Amino acid sequence: MTTRRPIYLDCDTGIDDALALAYLLASPLASVVGIGTVSGNVSAAVGARNTLDLLALAGAADVPVALGANDPLAASFHGGAPWVHGSNGVGEVELPASGASLAAESAAAMLVRLARAYTGELRVVAIGPLTNIARALELEPSLVQSVTIMGGAALAPGSITPVAEANIWHDPEAAALVLAADWDVTLVPLDVTMASVLEETHRQALLASSAPVPRALGEMLAYYFRFYEGIYGRPCSAMHDPLAAALAVGAVKAALAPVVHAAVDTSDGPGRGQTVCDMRGLYAGYPPVKGARCRVVLSLEDDFGPHLVETLLGHFEGTTAALAEAGSVA
Amino acid sequence: MTTRRPIYLDCDTGIDDALALAYLLASPLASVVGIGTVSGNVSAAVGARNTLDLLALAGAADVPVALGANDPLAASFHGGAPWVHGSNGVGEVELPASGASLAAESAAAMLVRLARAYTGELRVVAIGPLTNIARALELEPSLVQSVTIMGGAALAPGSITPVAEANIWHDPEAAALVLAADWDVTLVPLDVTMASVLEETHRQALLASSAPVPRALGEMLAYYFRFYEGIYGRPCSAMHDPLAAALAVGAVKAALAPVVHAAVDTSDGPGRGQTVCDMRGLYAGYPPVKGARCRVVLSLEDDFGPHLVETLLGHFEGTTAALAEAGSVA
Repeated sequence: MTTRRPIYLDCDTGIDDALALAYLLASPLASVVGIGTVSGNVSAAVGARNTLDLLALAGAADVPVALGANDPLAASFHGGAPWVHGSNGVGEVELPASGASLAAESAAAMLVRLARAYTGELRVVAIGPLTNIARALELEPSLVQSVTIMGGAALAPGSITPVAEANIWHDPEAAALVLAADWDVTLVPLDVTMASVLEETHRQALLASSAPVPRALGEMLAYYFRFYEGIYGRPCSAMHDPLAAALAVGAVKAALAPVVHAAVDTSDGPGRGQTVCDMRGLYAGYPPVKGARCRVVLSLEDDFGPHLVETLLGHFEGTTAALAEAGSVA
Repeated sequence: MTTRRPIYLDCDTGIDDALALAYLLASPLASVVGIGTVSGNVSAAVGARNTLDLLALAGAADVPVALGANDPLAASFHGGAPWVHGSNGVGEVELPASGASLAAESAAAMLVRLARAYTGELRVVAIGPLTNIARALELEPSLVQSVTIMGGAALAPGSITPVAEANIWHDPEAAALVLAADWDVTLVPLDVTMASVLEETHRQALLASSAPVPRALGEMLAYYFRFYEGIYGRPCSAMHDPLAAALAVGAVKAALAPVVHAAVDTSDGPGRGQTVCDMRGLYAGYPPVKGARCRVVLSLEDDFGPHLVETLLGHFEGTTAALAEAGSVA
C-alpha cells in the first residue's frame, strides 16, 4: 500500500483550483491535511466559500480550510479575474452551500502548524498568489518543506503581461521572498501548463459522470473553455493547477525539469511579475548549476489529460456508488 | 539582373560583425553605401579600425566608415567583451592595417544623410547596440526606413543576463527609442541566431580558401568557437550578425516571424535590457495583432551555415582570382 503524502494546499478557488482540489482528494498518493485560501482568481473569502462547498460536495467536509491574505504584500487586491473564472469563481455554477465553518487560524498560521506537525513530510502545493506562503516564512523563516508552485513563465510567454503569469504578477513581492527562501522549489510554469490541454472530450467525460463532483467540474469548465478559446482558437483549456498538484504528489513525472537560479522582477518596469529563470543552459542540455534551487518543469513524460479525468472519475464514481449502496442498505 | 539594395551597416566589429560585413560585401543583393561603428563588442574606435582593415582586405576600401557613439545614451562604455571577441575584437588575428581614413561625419549624421539620399530604399542593418540609430532618430524623427536589428530575445534565454541579449542590454534606452519609433523593425533575436550554428566543418572550409578574407574569418572564428564551446558544449558558434544581414537583404527567408508589440525594459530591475515581446499569440499560431510593428524572426526556412560559407567563398575566391589574373596580365 502506498503512503499518502500530507498536503497543504494554498489556493484561490477558481475553476482550475477546483480541479486541483478534486484531484488531490481523489489521488491515492495524497492526504489533504489543510487548505488556505488567498486572493487571486477571486478574493480569499470567495475562494474559501468555494473550497468549503467543493469539499462538502466531495464528502470531505472534515478537511480544515483557513482564510488567508486578502491583499498582496505591497498592494490591494485588484478584484480577481471574472472573465476567466466567472463572477463566483466557479464559472457561474451554483454549488450546494456547505454548512462548515472556516478554521480559527489564518492560512499562514495553519501552514506553520502543519509544517511542525508533519516535519519533513508536508508538501506545500501553492496554486494561487504566494502571499500566504510568504507570510508563513515571516512567521517561521526555517519553514523548510517541499514547495510546488503553479506559477511563472520560464521561456513561454506570460499570461497577464507578455512576460508575467497571473499568480506571480498578483503578488511579485511575495513570490520574490518564496523563491529566495532556503528551500527547494518546484515551479510549474506556463511552459508546461499551457502545453497540457484539457479537450472537449475530457470535459464531456466529466459531464457524463454518475458522480456530482466530476459533473460540477465539467459544468465549470464550459466557462473556462470559453475564455481559453480566445487563446487556443478552439474550446479547450490549460491545466495549470491540477498539473501542479499531480507533479507535487509524484503521480506525473517531468520529462525535462532543469534546476536553475530564479528570481522575481519586483520593479515597476514592463517585467514586473516575471519569474526571471536563468535558462541559459538550454544549448548544452541544462548542465547542473551550482547553488541553484528552483526546479522548473518544462515538459512531461505523458499527456496529463487522461490521467486527470481517470483519477477524478475513478475516485468520485467509486465513493458515490459506495454511498448509494450504504444508503440502500440502511 | 537583380538590383542591389543600398545598405547602411551599423556595427561594433566584432567577429560576427566581421562575418556580416564580409557577407554583405559578397552578396549580389547588397550594396554597402556606408558603415557606422558603435561601442559594444569593442569600442566604437576599435570597431572602426577593424572595419577599415577588413574593407581594405576585401578590396572595398572605398566604402565610407563613420565613427559613432562611444558611450550608450545613459551610461559609459563598459569596455567590451574580449572574452568573446578577443582583445582586438577580431579574435587576436592581426589584419593588415588599412591606410584609409574615417569619414568626417558621425555615424548618426551619415545615416541621416544616406536615408535622404536613398529615400525609401535604404536598408539599415544594425548589428551592435542601437545608440547611433537612436541618435539619428533624434536628428531626424521621420527617418522612416527598413531597419533590421540583430538583438534581443523573444522566447529564448538572454545572453548577458537570463533575459537580456548583449546588443540591447548595452544600451536599453537607445533600443527603447528605436523600437518605439514610427517604422517597421525586423528583430533577429537569439531565438533564431542561437539556433543557427556555424560548425567546425564550415570554419575549415573558410580556412582552406584561396582568398584572404575567408581565411581571416576562419582564423577569427577559432577564438569565437572557444567562447561558444562553453555554451553549446562543442566547438561551434551562433551566427548572430551575418544572419541579420542575410535576412535584411532577402537572401534568407524566415519560416516563422510574427509581427508583435515589443518594448525594451529600461528599469533597474532584473529585466533591464530585455526585449519584452508580446508572444502570447503563440497558442493560436500568432494571429495578426492590430498596431504591432515589430517582426520577430523565430525560425528560418533553410539552414544558414552553407549559404553563408558559399556566399563568402564564391565572391572572395572570384575576386582574388580576378586580381591574380589581372596581375599576371599586367
